Amino acid sequence: MSLTLIIGNKNYSSWSLRAALVLALTGVRYQERRIVLGQPETQARLREFSPSGKVPVLLTELGPVWDSLAIAEYLAERFPEAHLWPRGEYGRALARSMCAEMHSGFVALRTHLPMDLKRQVELTDLPSDARVDIERMCALWLSCRQRFGADGPFLFGHPSIADAFFAPVAARFHSYAVALPPVAADYVAIIYQWPAFQRWYRAALQETETLE
Amino acid sequence: MSLTLIIGNKNYSSWSLRAALVLALTGVRYQERRIVLGQPETQARLREFSPSGKVPVLLTELGPVWDSLAIAEYLAERFPEAHLWPRGEYGRALARSMCAEMHSGFVALRTHLPMDLKRQVELTDLPSDARVDIERMCALWLSCRQRFGADGPFLFGHPSIADAFFAPVAARFHSYAVALPPVAADYVAIIYQWPAFQRWYRAALQETETLE
Repeated sequence: MSLTLIIGNKNYSSWSLRAALVLALTGVRYQERRIVLGQPETQARLREFSPSGKVPVLLTELGPVWDSLAIAEYLAERFPEAHLWPRGEYGRALARSMCAEMHSGFVALRTHLPMDLKRQVELTDLPSDARVDIERMCALWLSCRQRFGADGPFLFGHPSIADAFFAPVAARFHSYAVALPPVAADYVAIIYQWPAFQRWYRAALQETETLE
Repeated sequence: MSLTLIIGNKNYSSWSLRAALVLALTGVRYQERRIVLGQPETQARLREFSPSGKVPVLLTELGPVWDSLAIAEYLAERFPEAHLWPRGEYGRALARSMCAEMHSGFVALRTHLPMDLKRQVELTDLPSDARVDIERMCALWLSCRQRFGADGPFLFGHPSIADAFFAPVAARFHSYAVALPPVAADYVAIIYQWPAFQRWYRAALQETETLE
């Protein structure tokens, strides 16, 4: 068994973080290889490994699997005993709907509050479209906590791909000191206590490269 | 068994078309309900059915499943005998990688060549970023045809979710009369001969609403 995850900078690459958290949920041993983003040679190095020219990519025995969501589905199928998606049929459908919404949506949130784990400064001038995204995010989290809260502190009770997908959002809320309703603030704290997130976070704080 | 697919205008809503094609692959009977886009009441009507405020949404016995990709995964799980994803492990991983890349990428292609099934006019001034997307798309299709061409004329041989996801791209190439390499042009023709696509296409041609 040989898996290598190609990632970008830990401080900035939210999609790399998602794939790494899903891999952590499987418990499998894997190699990690980092490509520093925003450098003159970045594009060429990405093209060496990634058919789409983006991170993350998971190199498997059969070939590359690219895109965080496809990596998540691949791992869910390869490690069924890890229950990477929630166990209930509709829970799975909900989790997939939320992850797909994250995957193609929340553009204002992603544009105005890019992941920057080292940052800890309030964003005083929050654009209105980013506010709409934040409200939608909090509504999603709240509905999950109401429905699955009895099973554990993660979105669907036990940690799942959904938490891997929303962890970088929790990190943004923390970095930009976004004012949140209590349920959302609690969820951010749960993410910051998640050992797999903490390992990535500590490594990110030690990176020296910046994106310019 | 009761499924209702909420869609937008058949002429414009490429994501609705994707979900409808996946449903067609299952063979299940379902209801269709159309919300005309771009009208004063559109947002309120979308919110009635769709947690994300977007189409498509699949209303199931257990609750709404939203986003074309989550709908596809939900149906693949619910109708395993339909083999909506390719049968081989790496074929599935490739198909999912390509669909995920389509889901969050190809922004220039989607922006400059929006789906408009009634249109049949060459786009003479193709922006360079759209050209890059078109080249990437043709490379993806070519690699699939080389790998799976012996099994049938669709991307992975037999029709799959991948074809549902790339059919709207084939439609764009046709509508805007994009010059294509032979393998890609052949694939566009295959899509226009697909009965499920033809049914949608004919209905789209009869719609009278326009987006302004």
